[in-house]
Amino acid sequence: MNEIKVFSPATVANVACGFDVLGFCLDSVGDDMVIRKVEKKGIHITRIEGFDLPHEAELNVAGVSALAMYDAIDVDFGFEIEIYKNIKPGSGIGSSAASAVGSVFGMNELIGRPFNKTQLTEFAIKGEALASKCEHADNLAPALFGGFTLVKSIKPLQILEIPSPDDIYATIIHPQIEIKTSESRAILPKEVALADAITQWANVGSLVHALHTSDYDLIKDSLHDVIVEPHRSKLIPYFNEVKEAVLNAGALGCGISGSGPSIFSVNKGLETANKVKEAMERIYSKTGITFDIHVSKINTSGVKIV
Amino acid sequence: MNEIKVFSPATVANVACGFDVLGFCLDSVGDDMVIRKVEKKGIHITRIEGFDLPHEAELNVAGVSALAMYDAIDVDFGFEIEIYKNIKPGSGIGSSAASAVGSVFGMNELIGRPFNKTQLTEFAIKGEALASKCEHADNLAPALFGGFTLVKSIKPLQILEIPSPDDIYATIIHPQIEIKTSESRAILPKEVALADAITQWANVGSLVHALHTSDYDLIKDSLHDVIVEPHRSKLIPYFNEVKEAVLNAGALGCGISGSGPSIFSVNKGLETANKVKEAMERIYSKTGITFDIHVSKINTSGVKIV
Repeated sequence: MNEIKVFSPATVANVACGFDVLGFCLDSVGDDMVIRKVEKKGIHITRIEGFDLPHEAELNVAGVSALAMYDAIDVDFGFEIEIYKNIKPGSGIGSSAASAVGSVFGMNELIGRPFNKTQLTEFAIKGEALASKCEHADNLAPALFGGFTLVKSIKPLQILEIPSPDDIYATIIHPQIEIKTSESRAILPKEVALADAITQWANVGSLVHALHTSDYDLIKDSLHDVIVEPHRSKLIPYFNEVKEAVLNAGALGCGISGSGPSIFSVNKGLETANKVKEAMERIYSKTGITFDIHVSKINTSGVKIV
Repeated sequence: MNEIKVFSPATVANVACGFDVLGFCLDSVGDDMVIRKVEKKGIHITRIEGFDLPHEAELNVAGVSALAMYDAIDVDFGFEIEIYKNIKPGSGIGSSAASAVGSVFGMNELIGRPFNKTQLTEFAIKGEALASKCEHADNLAPALFGGFTLVKSIKPLQILEIPSPDDIYATIIHPQIEIKTSESRAILPKEVALADAITQWANVGSLVHALHTSDYDLIKDSLHDVIVEPHRSKLIPYFNEVKEAVLNAGALGCGISGSGPSIFSVNKGLETANKVKEAMERIYSKTGITFDIHVSKINTSGVKIV
């Protein structure tokens, strides 16, 4: 096998209470990538469609993660990468993570899978760092492993796969505004009230328990963020209106996807997920802001060969 | 049935990362109580052995929780309570919780179990509040439910029963020094670094996952407290020495039990728990401080009829 086509999925990081540690994987939105073994040594990005991104491997997220892996293997050939980008950069649903994951996953398949998914995440972190200026894995982990993941620590890298009920669907609205990463970081407090932190870790523990036990009511009770959302939601127009409408439409929970501007909801069943989509549309169609909405089952397998 | 004998167990609250929310139940140490239906209406504490505690129901933890339940039922009889106290008050292993739980559990059994365990916890919270000056349930929940518990919230009261592996043993040393509750509260910061809070909720999520999956290595990796222990450990003589010796002896984790002064460890297997006991003894026997050590399997059923 010299060529492989890969689907690298979008992801939702933070998941309300789990800032910086939790994430889940989407099914219906993601990038397509082609990875090809070629004689010419090195990493060569030969085609990018969808968005205007750099072709130089060392300036491209998929290229940097590929180079990190390429440096760790000893081969007398190279790789070409084609990127068919569907996830808009800056949308808050793991666009850079999908790129970073797709290249290393595809290369690993082509050379007989010498690396496990945690090792692939280590390479992909290098690509993600190019985009977000810091090493984090809260989008990479769900993109590689699928389902719900908890990044327990970065050094050493520890990723936990949390089971989830079958009937969970996400609805995500991407308002096409730009939030600068620097701004979404600067707005966070360096210190938080101990009482709020306790509420947050009670919710994280309880969400993990709820996912293990398929307890939808408890999932709903756990999807609250008292730490980050009160600050970052100010950067997202109509966040409070959307959240209220989404919860009224029956969602289990609603919050900021990654650092925004996308807003995610978690729902029991496709019917509710579609009602939530309508509620999001109702609010945003009046605002004059362009938006996309995705409805997706939780993707339990992550990045895959297509 | 007009009389019942109850074993009301000691408990460990906080469990390293889970400050204010997690707890587990012990098997080999606890109070014995006798609860008796009598003609004379009201709650009457007729006997207390072991420690000098008030006999007036409204001044006694077991009495206050009993009164809270008595006010909620409509009966033409009363209850006598005898308390054979084995858990030293102020030891940090849930002495007041055991008293608060024993009376309401026993009364509930005698009147045909009209209340579930969460409702019993609501009554017991009133007794616990007499001792600790605030309403909390992190010792009450494991004493009533057994095993590991997560108190997700107090209002409304939500208690989650987290499963645990069969082979977990706790070793607990109680150095017989007094730590004033006011002091152990005052030493805690009102605000904590966001980065530390993230570490803590990653550990809480990861511990819940580890307990669900019987992953001992992950239990070990999760039992860290970066928020409270750095402050409260200063109040416990030789805490750092004990912790180091305990971890060297093979414990999965070690921390402050409740607000101290007891130090708990969690171990895989009885053999390790006994080695940890020896390690604790080696350190403390040189200090001149009187101490007790308990080795106990996790008690998965909680308070019980004997």
